[in-house]
Amino acid sequence: MTLQQQSPEWADQIKWSEDGLVPAVVQDSLSKEVLMLAYMNEESLKKSLESGQTWFWSRSRNELWNKGATSGHTQQIVSLHYDCDGDTLLVKVQQKGPACHTGAYSCFYREGASAEENATSTGQQEDRFGPL
Amino acid sequence: MTLQQQSPEWADQIKWSEDGLVPAVVQDSLSKEVLMLAYMNEESLKKSLESGQTWFWSRSRNELWNKGATSGHTQQIVSLHYDCDGDTLLVKVQQKGPACHTGAYSCFYREGASAEENATSTGQQEDRFGPL
Repeated sequence: MTLQQQSPEWADQIKWSEDGLVPAVVQDSLSKEVLMLAYMNEESLKKSLESGQTWFWSRSRNELWNKGATSGHTQQIVSLHYDCDGDTLLVKVQQKGPACHTGAYSCFYREGASAEENATSTGQQEDRFGPL
Repeated sequence: MTLQQQSPEWADQIKWSEDGLVPAVVQDSLSKEVLMLAYMNEESLKKSLESGQTWFWSRSRNELWNKGATSGHTQQIVSLHYDCDGDTLLVKVQQKGPACHTGAYSCFYREGASAEENATSTGQQEDRFGPL
């Protein structure tokens, strides 16, 4: 399965860092939870677009990395967006199994701080922060 | 408004890059859309926790930056998570106005590729990718 690209030129607008990478935020397309952040170089972006699955550049292992190739916890790409500065990607995926190597659904399973419990309830947010 | 911190030690687990930064993914706590990615250093994380609003380090201007201080498009922090590696933050916020300096709701308003139109419909995904 290959992805339909909106414009053949868009990938030229990506501003790679000095070491040739951009951060890629991976989001579950259904639950909308943020699953992980990893880094892509030009080759891993190309492989992601060609295969329809996420490929990253591992900064610790210095190698291309097909997410889920070993664990089976693959990510099928639903869409790929780039930001206003062209230096960050947002990859919406259909996640198979847990995204995190720890077995957690998302890599962001540890909460450091919160405004209050149940703060995501709209009513409570309105009370606390004023009208939306 | 100060944030309730889950553990006084958690911030010590953040692994700052060589230049003292970590990427912070900012997500709308209500719509769950990813709004932007910016960078925090230790001081901006501290200011974010103290004020309850997002503070970042601007890599282009080399200065601390209180998101929305000029535009009024502030971000009230609802929760702050850190990932399994401790090198990325996820900040869920109540966004006031657009998050992007272009006036767009999210900085990720440009789509580079997609599996197919309306691919976020569960039914179509099941048809295309097999059972969820």
